[in-house]
Amino acid sequence: MNTKLRYGMVGGGPGAFIGEAHRRSINIDGKAELVSGWFSRSFEKTKERGRELGISEDRCYATFEEMAKAEAAREDGIDFVVVVTPNVSHYSICKAFLEAGIHVSCDKPLAVSVAQAEELERLANDKGLLFLVTYTYMGHVTARHAREIIKAGELGKIRTVVAEYPQGWLAYEGEWGGKQGEWRCDPEQSGNTNCLGDLGTHIENAVTTMTGLKIKRVLARMDKVVPGRKRDDNDFVMAEFENGATGLFWSSQIAIGHDNSLRVRIYGDGGSIQWFQEEPEKITVIKKDGTITEVHRGYSSIAPEAAKYGRLPSGHPEGWFEAMGNLYKSFIECIEAKKNGTFTPDMIDYPTVSDGVEGIRFVEACLKSQELGNVWVDL
Amino acid sequence: MNTKLRYGMVGGGPGAFIGEAHRRSINIDGKAELVSGWFSRSFEKTKERGRELGISEDRCYATFEEMAKAEAAREDGIDFVVVVTPNVSHYSICKAFLEAGIHVSCDKPLAVSVAQAEELERLANDKGLLFLVTYTYMGHVTARHAREIIKAGELGKIRTVVAEYPQGWLAYEGEWGGKQGEWRCDPEQSGNTNCLGDLGTHIENAVTTMTGLKIKRVLARMDKVVPGRKRDDNDFVMAEFENGATGLFWSSQIAIGHDNSLRVRIYGDGGSIQWFQEEPEKITVIKKDGTITEVHRGYSSIAPEAAKYGRLPSGHPEGWFEAMGNLYKSFIECIEAKKNGTFTPDMIDYPTVSDGVEGIRFVEACLKSQELGNVWVDL
Amino acid sequence: MNTKLRYGMVGGGPGAFIGEAHRRSINIDGKAELVSGWFSRSFEKTKERGRELGISEDRCYATFEEMAKAEAAREDGIDFVVVVTPNVSHYSICKAFLEAGIHVSCDKPLAVSVAQAEELERLANDKGLLFLVTYTYMGHVTARHAREIIKAGELGKIRTVVAEYPQGWLAYEGEWGGKQGEWRCDPEQSGNTNCLGDLGTHIENAVTTMTGLKIKRVLARMDKVVPGRKRDDNDFVMAEFENGATGLFWSSQIAIGHDNSLRVRIYGDGGSIQWFQEEPEKITVIKKDGTITEVHRGYSSIAPEAAKYGRLPSGHPEGWFEAMGNLYKSFIECIEAKKNGTFTPDMIDYPTVSDGVEGIRFVEACLKSQELGNVWVDL
Amino acid sequence: MNTKLRYGMVGGGPGAFIGEAHRRSINIDGKAELVSGWFSRSFEKTKERGRELGISEDRCYATFEEMAKAEAAREDGIDFVVVVTPNVSHYSICKAFLEAGIHVSCDKPLAVSVAQAEELERLANDKGLLFLVTYTYMGHVTARHAREIIKAGELGKIRTVVAEYPQGWLAYEGEWGGKQGEWRCDPEQSGNTNCLGDLGTHIENAVTTMTGLKIKRVLARMDKVVPGRKRDDNDFVMAEFENGATGLFWSSQIAIGHDNSLRVRIYGDGGSIQWFQEEPEKITVIKKDGTITEVHRGYSSIAPEAAKYGRLPSGHPEGWFEAMGNLYKSFIECIEAKKNGTFTPDMIDYPTVSDGVEGIRFVEACLKSQELGNVWVDL
Repeated sequence: MNTKLRYGMVGGGPGAFIGEAHRRSINIDGKAELVSGWFSRSFEKTKERGRELGISEDRCYATFEEMAKAEAAREDGIDFVVVVTPNVSHYSICKAFLEAGIHVSCDKPLAVSVAQAEELERLANDKGLLFLVTYTYMGHVTARHAREIIKAGELGKIRTVVAEYPQGWLAYEGEWGGKQGEWRCDPEQSGNTNCLGDLGTHIENAVTTMTGLKIKRVLARMDKVVPGRKRDDNDFVMAEFENGATGLFWSSQIAIGHDNSLRVRIYGDGGSIQWFQEEPEKITVIKKDGTITEVHRGYSSIAPEAAKYGRLPSGHPEGWFEAMGNLYKSFIECIEAKKNGTFTPDMIDYPTVSDGVEGIRFVEACLKSQELGNVWVDL
Repeated sequence: MNTKLRYGMVGGGPGAFIGEAHRRSINIDGKAELVSGWFSRSFEKTKERGRELGISEDRCYATFEEMAKAEAAREDGIDFVVVVTPNVSHYSICKAFLEAGIHVSCDKPLAVSVAQAEELERLANDKGLLFLVTYTYMGHVTARHAREIIKAGELGKIRTVVAEYPQGWLAYEGEWGGKQGEWRCDPEQSGNTNCLGDLGTHIENAVTTMTGLKIKRVLARMDKVVPGRKRDDNDFVMAEFENGATGLFWSSQIAIGHDNSLRVRIYGDGGSIQWFQEEPEKITVIKKDGTITEVHRGYSSIAPEAAKYGRLPSGHPEGWFEAMGNLYKSFIECIEAKKNGTFTPDMIDYPTVSDGVEGIRFVEACLKSQELGNVWVDL
Repeated sequence: MNTKLRYGMVGGGPGAFIGEAHRRSINIDGKAELVSGWFSRSFEKTKERGRELGISEDRCYATFEEMAKAEAAREDGIDFVVVVTPNVSHYSICKAFLEAGIHVSCDKPLAVSVAQAEELERLANDKGLLFLVTYTYMGHVTARHAREIIKAGELGKIRTVVAEYPQGWLAYEGEWGGKQGEWRCDPEQSGNTNCLGDLGTHIENAVTTMTGLKIKRVLARMDKVVPGRKRDDNDFVMAEFENGATGLFWSSQIAIGHDNSLRVRIYGDGGSIQWFQEEPEKITVIKKDGTITEVHRGYSSIAPEAAKYGRLPSGHPEGWFEAMGNLYKSFIECIEAKKNGTFTPDMIDYPTVSDGVEGIRFVEACLKSQELGNVWVDL
Repeated sequence: MNTKLRYGMVGGGPGAFIGEAHRRSINIDGKAELVSGWFSRSFEKTKERGRELGISEDRCYATFEEMAKAEAAREDGIDFVVVVTPNVSHYSICKAFLEAGIHVSCDKPLAVSVAQAEELERLANDKGLLFLVTYTYMGHVTARHAREIIKAGELGKIRTVVAEYPQGWLAYEGEWGGKQGEWRCDPEQSGNTNCLGDLGTHIENAVTTMTGLKIKRVLARMDKVVPGRKRDDNDFVMAEFENGATGLFWSSQIAIGHDNSLRVRIYGDGGSIQWFQEEPEKITVIKKDGTITEVHRGYSSIAPEAAKYGRLPSGHPEGWFEAMGNLYKSFIECIEAKKNGTFTPDMIDYPTVSDGVEGIRFVEACLKSQELGNVWVDL
């Protein structure tokens, strides 16, 4: 009696940390097992990887199109696919699986154009398929707590949001980033943007998820700082939200001294929060009267909608795998509910294809703002 | 083709977070799967739990003795057992599995007396069986880095060690700790000590593992602070190491404001380190000239022996599950090597039964010191 | 035998914390004493304040013009004047004392228009008078260390600068700020800007002082967030430096949870620094290889040009008074040298009237950018 | 009209940072001026120092005995004396000034034996003279806030106290400490103890001041770690308070990586506080329910008895000089009240000679405990 869901993976070959990361995150709860894959453009490498991962050879595929069709046809076919390839291929891969009727989890950014992204959204909606876009950081209990207390009005009307995502690993050309850096800075693989697509979209998602506000327009300055770089590596964005609040965002890959420093600070007329993904076990909440409180995952003051995702008592650090694991937890519960006929849309507690579309809208508006000389552009 | 090891679990029934925690930690790498268990004294509960965990009913057992024998007899029997019961039962359970020829992973403290602990050590040695005692925190890459740089002489001769492990969750009787608190404060289940056995042993293990020094003697004061408590909940220990260095340790369950704050600071004549398990992604290293550097997991300055356990780039927090997962990583590699005939003792990179014995020696010496009025007692 | 310099004060009446703050800062080294003043528009209040401060009544004045003339005429007249009135009056007061041949220390922002500021600069230069603009924070040893190591090339070519100065005390109208808040938000007293003039100028000065780079142009968005507020209270600025580096600045008075959080981060192609005025005893320096070091005031690695301003060993916190005291230390040494005939311009180690002019240029360019719809405006 | 008090100084010659530090601390408020001194055993050096400090030559003295008599005899004689010599001379100097009827401020430790200390206490009481012992750190607003909220019962019954004072500057013989280190490690100048007298007494004073509890008995281990050192440089102390609470204290001069790290953590059955002198602008207060709040100097939640000592708004760091300045603020107010005939004992808000006596009792008990092999010794 094994009740685990079955899933396949597209991408995630040797050296690609993100594929391994998804597998480990799914493993934490042990609710789904990997049974199928197209890990590399080289069929040999796919089969080799499949062997390492204990996948039977008949479920290692030469093309993703074949995989989508074959898995859809099997009685024991995969329940969902995980897409962890470079950005430019997301669209065609996701499309193939959606058309085959398979639920999709895709790494962000969802696509390289709004048109692509919207087509995926339409397709998923038309087919009634679930679609997770893995904005990992929003899986953290503390990030969800931010969302819940803002929804509950504890910060009052949001006035301004200051967020940043600096990294330093691509501060030099060729020296550091290795394979990871290569494809991210390569227009052929990453599309029209490097830093903004990779990091800026995380800011956009974090900020809109936590505040519940949509971005109305942006003014962006996107620089290529490292000599020889072909895409942006340091980006400044001013934003206006629908409620009139403002935002200031910085994403960078040249900020030596920062590892992976997504930081969100949200200021309302009733209080504020400060949240930092490198210290995801806590969130600083400031009350209207200025009282600064440090709230830890596991504390009784954490909102129940967030607290339920915790797996350990406070002081026992949960990290990146657990955050992504939380996205999969809700995604898998929704798929199970679909299978059982108990699914309702309010069960969805993960970033969807629509969040993915918003991310691409944000990127396109920023690119246009940069092109026009740093002027305001509507999303 | 499934190359995973098979394991069984003793303990870890409903409400017992530690059993779930071991399972998740093992899952991260996906190298072993749970196939058998005795989860509760109630056979009904064991079977129920087994169903939830996808274990076939014939491998859910009514007693641990039966489990040990039956699994030893099966061709597809378990490769190792994970023992996560209250302290007083560790001895008899571990003994049963060792006698059945099965490798053992046991939660700390290993036993409730030195005699018990030494017998388990002898038994494991005689049988040539591997024995992991899950001092979780030593699995952290940064903790291992501390060990490696001290071994390499970077701190010079160790002079003094100051370590603490305060928690606040048992600051009141009955109100907070719930099921967890109950058994830990209950002499019937925890043995002669509560706080020192639970937390003090982590200090002892962390300090001796990092420094490579043995504790020669201790002077302990063990208090029962909360009215009505039957075992110690706040402990002070002075220690002397074999090299003449000194140590000062504090463990507490009444320290409101601390979640799980194991903190180790080691001072040599060539530098010092500061390590804090609630922020396990970094370690502060101070050079002889006073230069303070902050080293993160994932940095190139991390010793290779430690760095190899990292699964994510720096800035992508790894936490408690990953730390315990690292202990299991080495343990499982050793078992695989045993099965392949490639095992050599230098492969062991996890806390063993001998470390477990040292922990109990520490506890017994402290108990005796307390009994004699806070005098020095040899380990 | 009293070798102290003599000084007078304009402004700094009851309730005006800044006047008291200047007096205390000057007192720390005991090299100058207050002997004269015009503390309030009310002559009665001036005399009352004078009595409290031990100033003889004949040196309490009814107008600042009278004070300038009378003190200039006395043989034992003041060596310098300290101007700590609301912004709109800086120009006329400073002008009066410069014309009387008296050295001036003036609080920032220097004036309310570039024309005013430039006139003061010309006047000081023509008269050969010293002019300190009290950008307090640049007095910190650690801030000066940043300047020195950047000057020495330790960060390589500066690429981008991210700086902020959030406060929360004016998050509400009328409730919090008291007398201080009133005049700062009042156009009649503060001029065309509130937050940017008060806080943004500190950012501009810190950033240009530390990097040694001039700002070429800015793009600013200045918002009035609190309902009813007449001047900006939340400002975003993008900047371009002469060397092509970029900057992103945020100043705010509505950021609940921040006291006085000037924070500067500077990223070069050879390393970076992070400096935070609320923790002025340390600076984080990151090397090209990513090594993070924490350097404290008092450490031997602090540049001698900065270290010489320290008055206590490391770990004995110096703060705001000491930072301002350091500006006065250099200012007073220069005045003494002027008196002794040993003055040379390279002795000046404090923010001058020219720095003050740059601040007003920055403010005017930002105001124009805002007026034109957030476009780039040259300084 | 000059209403300042007049004071003299004994000690504080060239290179003695503590003398300069007292002068600066007194200067901050400008309520007393230095008019007299015996700065060095060499009369020439005393006169030279006097010249530098603007003191008339007739008030520079060849011996402290002469100074006490002469100043007592003058109509414009000093109101108080500041004693900042090495420990062994405190007793005779303080005695001379008390006998001359002059109020005394003496650096800690007060004396080198309980007998000496008690005699000074008796003398001060008999003569009705004020006596400040400059335990600097208790001057901090946040430290006083700790005292006030504990007095008000906010932490309930105090259960345990963990405090430390590590420094690293004497980690090597001869290399680092310079003149400061020499006399502190020299039995001829410092008495029977080095580290415990210098740092341990600060712990004792901080802990008893904040909790309002007396120490009943101690068990101490005092080590001489650096080869060749003649007095203790690393000390562990267990303590019992009169109410049954326990304490664990660590003081060290060999803890590389620490500058001056007095840290006090106090745990009650109703909450706890954490206070760190290197970050004196904040105090962490934890409520019974585990809520962690960070309270800053300047916040409205600071107790009025503590808040009144603040001189700047929150976020404008006050430091070591301000802390010592606060002790002098109360001391000077008391002297003024004595002169005005308005003094009442409840005005005393600084550490007195009796606190100094307690410090020496603590040191003597620790020395005896060490001598007897680390046993409990009553104070």
